Amino acid sequence: MHYFSASIERAVDELSKLPGIGRKTAQRLVFYLMKIPRQDVEELSRALIDIKDKATYCSVCFNITENDPCSVCTNNNRNRSLICVVEEANDVVAFERTGEFKGLYHVLGGALSPLDGIGPDSLKICELIQRIDDSVHEIIIATNPNAEGEATALYIAKLVKPLGIKISRIARGIPVGTDIEYADEMTLTRAIEGRSTL
Amino acid sequence: MHYFSASIERAVDELSKLPGIGRKTAQRLVFYLMKIPRQDVEELSRALIDIKDKATYCSVCFNITENDPCSVCTNNNRNRSLICVVEEANDVVAFERTGEFKGLYHVLGGALSPLDGIGPDSLKICELIQRIDDSVHEIIIATNPNAEGEATALYIAKLVKPLGIKISRIARGIPVGTDIEYADEMTLTRAIEGRSTL
Repeated sequence: MHYFSASIERAVDELSKLPGIGRKTAQRLVFYLMKIPRQDVEELSRALIDIKDKATYCSVCFNITENDPCSVCTNNNRNRSLICVVEEANDVVAFERTGEFKGLYHVLGGALSPLDGIGPDSLKICELIQRIDDSVHEIIIATNPNAEGEATALYIAKLVKPLGIKISRIARGIPVGTDIEYADEMTLTRAIEGRSTL
Repeated sequence: MHYFSASIERAVDELSKLPGIGRKTAQRLVFYLMKIPRQDVEELSRALIDIKDKATYCSVCFNITENDPCSVCTNNNRNRSLICVVEEANDVVAFERTGEFKGLYHVLGGALSPLDGIGPDSLKICELIQRIDDSVHEIIIATNPNAEGEATALYIAKLVKPLGIKISRIARGIPVGTDIEYADEMTLTRAIEGRSTL
């Protein structure tokens, strides 16, 4: 049963299709949009459409970009022998924010998850293998430290190893600034396994 | 510093202006929008603009509606002697969902909160008083059971009482289906105060 007018119901329906937004949150957003000036809603609306009109995926690394290839792939100051493999474009943002990584990226577009129907063909794994030429010396796998991310890392490692290229996995351990007593068992196990000599 | 292309940054900026949506959530939403068909984004975009073009506030009860006055205010089957005063339009939805309340509503548009600069003039309190005529027999105050909601209830009660009309407050007590042991002190106190004879 509908308690709102048609336009409000439709906006709630549309917003609650977004990931992480339920009907209650969608309702709250719609009430907020009712209160702000029309121009602000127009700007939001235009910005969303612009994503589709202007942004695309880099044909080399599959990061989100307005110019193909993207600014990282075309930047000659980047270390082209190093490719950091991540699941999503926001992972690239996280690494870029450190300002420490100077290599290139490869965005898989997710992680292997057979139960959700995400197999190797759903990810840009083939494209990664095809990118690897003599100029590439190391592949750093920076998929998430969960079951899907680890499975994806192992799968890629198996494909890359025969090419004779160094392949590494980012360290999993205690996050900086936290207490060991609050770390879970898996993280502590990984932290001990990955210990370095002082 | 910006790590994304201009259109993505702008979409993230616009989305993170929405209440309850931070930059991380906005990023996730943008990545999701990148993946879905252009038509779906257009529909979302149109639905948001339609809120401004089609929906408005009822000039009688200030609920959200496409036709002014709204369908509740113009419904002759409703009990016009009873007005339920709520803070927001979603509270109307909550009461309508019960199917039990057959009176009219009055949406204040918030609750008194001097610290946030929300005084009586920011709410539709004057409009409530002006609505009250001989046909109205009872005002039920259904503002939220928190400091702001209680203050608003008391403020309205003080204005309505001289008019010689019955004024009531919805019961505060133990929610149906929960355990008493998990109820907070204030709720339990209210539940005892509001006890009814068996």
